[in-house]
Amino acid sequence: MAKSAEQEHPTKAFGWAATDSSGVLSPFKFSRRETGEKDVRFKVLYCGICHSDLHMAKNDWGTSTYPIVPGHEIVGIVTEVGSKVEKLKVGDRVGVGCMVGACHSCDSCDNDLENYCPKMILTYGAPYYDGTTTYGGYSDVMVAEERYVVRIPDNLPLDAGAPLLCAGITVYSPLQHFGLTKPGMHVGVVGLGGLGHVAVKFAKGFGVKVTVISTSPSKKKEAIEHLGADYFLVSRDPDQMQAAMGTMDGIIDTVSAVHPLVPLIGLLKSQGKLVMVGAPNRPLELPVFPLIMGRKVVAGSCIGGMKETQEMIDFAGKHNITADVEVIPVDYVNTAMERLEKADVRYRFVIDIGNTLKSA
Amino acid sequence: MAKSAEQEHPTKAFGWAATDSSGVLSPFKFSRRETGEKDVRFKVLYCGICHSDLHMAKNDWGTSTYPIVPGHEIVGIVTEVGSKVEKLKVGDRVGVGCMVGACHSCDSCDNDLENYCPKMILTYGAPYYDGTTTYGGYSDVMVAEERYVVRIPDNLPLDAGAPLLCAGITVYSPLQHFGLTKPGMHVGVVGLGGLGHVAVKFAKGFGVKVTVISTSPSKKKEAIEHLGADYFLVSRDPDQMQAAMGTMDGIIDTVSAVHPLVPLIGLLKSQGKLVMVGAPNRPLELPVFPLIMGRKVVAGSCIGGMKETQEMIDFAGKHNITADVEVIPVDYVNTAMERLEKADVRYRFVIDIGNTLKSA
Repeated sequence: MAKSAEQEHPTKAFGWAATDSSGVLSPFKFSRRETGEKDVRFKVLYCGICHSDLHMAKNDWGTSTYPIVPGHEIVGIVTEVGSKVEKLKVGDRVGVGCMVGACHSCDSCDNDLENYCPKMILTYGAPYYDGTTTYGGYSDVMVAEERYVVRIPDNLPLDAGAPLLCAGITVYSPLQHFGLTKPGMHVGVVGLGGLGHVAVKFAKGFGVKVTVISTSPSKKKEAIEHLGADYFLVSRDPDQMQAAMGTMDGIIDTVSAVHPLVPLIGLLKSQGKLVMVGAPNRPLELPVFPLIMGRKVVAGSCIGGMKETQEMIDFAGKHNITADVEVIPVDYVNTAMERLEKADVRYRFVIDIGNTLKSA
Repeated sequence: MAKSAEQEHPTKAFGWAATDSSGVLSPFKFSRRETGEKDVRFKVLYCGICHSDLHMAKNDWGTSTYPIVPGHEIVGIVTEVGSKVEKLKVGDRVGVGCMVGACHSCDSCDNDLENYCPKMILTYGAPYYDGTTTYGGYSDVMVAEERYVVRIPDNLPLDAGAPLLCAGITVYSPLQHFGLTKPGMHVGVVGLGGLGHVAVKFAKGFGVKVTVISTSPSKKKEAIEHLGADYFLVSRDPDQMQAAMGTMDGIIDTVSAVHPLVPLIGLLKSQGKLVMVGAPNRPLELPVFPLIMGRKVVAGSCIGGMKETQEMIDFAGKHNITADVEVIPVDYVNTAMERLEKADVRYRFVIDIGNTLKSA
């Protein structure tokens, strides 16, 4: 019989977990493995709340097994390293993002794309190599293989840096991979939430022109004055959309609600690329003729590999890119989830684990 | 008042035209311009029948203006060249494909992608620079700017080579552009018609493994034994499709009927590319999640630029690639159109213009 979460590993751990599909989180005792020879152990200081944490806590995708300790935007300070750890030492500022393992022998892994490995292991709610379940960052301590731990640049604040480990790499990777980083290019960002607002910042970091495309005219001032976007398009305004037709080299689409692709494909130049990073739960309507006429591309992209995640966070350090965050105590997490469901956050909640998570 | 088709240019020409949306073709007198300084004039010997000729003759796309002389797979022998023509001379074997003009000043034109120029001029049924209408290759003589004329390699038969000017470049270009030409790669070809059968030949020319994906099990023998495909998948057989999941680097989808994309996306490896070259007249259902999970791409591609068209036909010469054709006399063209509508041709009709088109 499988051991309890509290018994299966030698080291005590404490966090907050959802125990059923109500998604309500409550204090939870579990355990972490000892620091293996390739492992890095760190004290968690902050953890971002990703929208997928909400989906997983409520079993919206039907894949959740309880209890779940969410959290995959985890940062803290190294407290112990294994004998074969090469790049990190006690006291380093580090982070773990969406994954903690993969097969390390497939084409994807060989090309530093562990994120596309069929055996990629998610940071929480997934079976680990040893058969135990992974637990995320809404907890006091984290242990992960060095390959899955990134170093946080000294100048990046840990709280506002934490969301980069998921939201940041999710938008940085497609900008890089699909060649949307050349100064002078024009990139659209659809949706101005947790992903969209950092997409604007990274795209500006690369030096491209950025247009935010949103259903909400009310976000224009914020997009341009605060986030630094160059232009703002109200997607429901046909005149504005018409005037911008054929002007964009690429679009990062962060919207996970069902929405029409035709107008977005129309915004692209010939050879333009529409990259989906939000996943609507029903198929979208794809018009083929406009794709053919301009050799346009619709693609998807899912976080990024660990090498690229380190590059992303280093780039963020160099360009002072962080997420806009609202730091909350851990006992506010259920309220935060309710507000997140209503999109009532600018733009990411980050739990102050270090100062507010206290074992009973 | 505009001059009649017979009067607007100095040189008499003769062909077959559709005069209304019945699509029925009949003998038609018109005229061609004199050979301008950059022009190449040639006696038409053969012209392929593309499925789009049928659509245009019947105004299926609502863009036709009558009379229409179809034909954009046109080959023949040069009879006159303008004073500034540099690469071609009288007696050369040449061809004209889908386009005869473009703006020559946009990004697409600057990059040898006239096919994506917003002002690209189609070979027939389109307004030319001088305001007259373009007429296609179901006719005795053709005049076109040198830029739009390719040289046909000596070893390629003109009849079976003609369809390469549309069908050939339509499949060659996406194989090249989307990087599906590396030996060892595995490429799927959906649909085994005019486009699909040359896609198999070009893919084999590049040395990749080819799987034909078709609704018709009856095509298996032909695909493998005659066209040289390595494998054959019946798209309606879930077991066969399941067994091939995640094995393809790319797919060239030639089907212009509405069809499901989910199974095709499933056949792709991570990072795989599904390229549509057939244009269904209604949107297809696009599942976003599987795109994201494998950074997969759905793209369109439309013929190719003139530089690439010359490269394609040279490649075809080197690898002895031609279309499988049924050569017909011009007075069979209406019957051929009826058979084409029923997909009753293996795989392309080619009109023997040189021997059968006689002015009354």
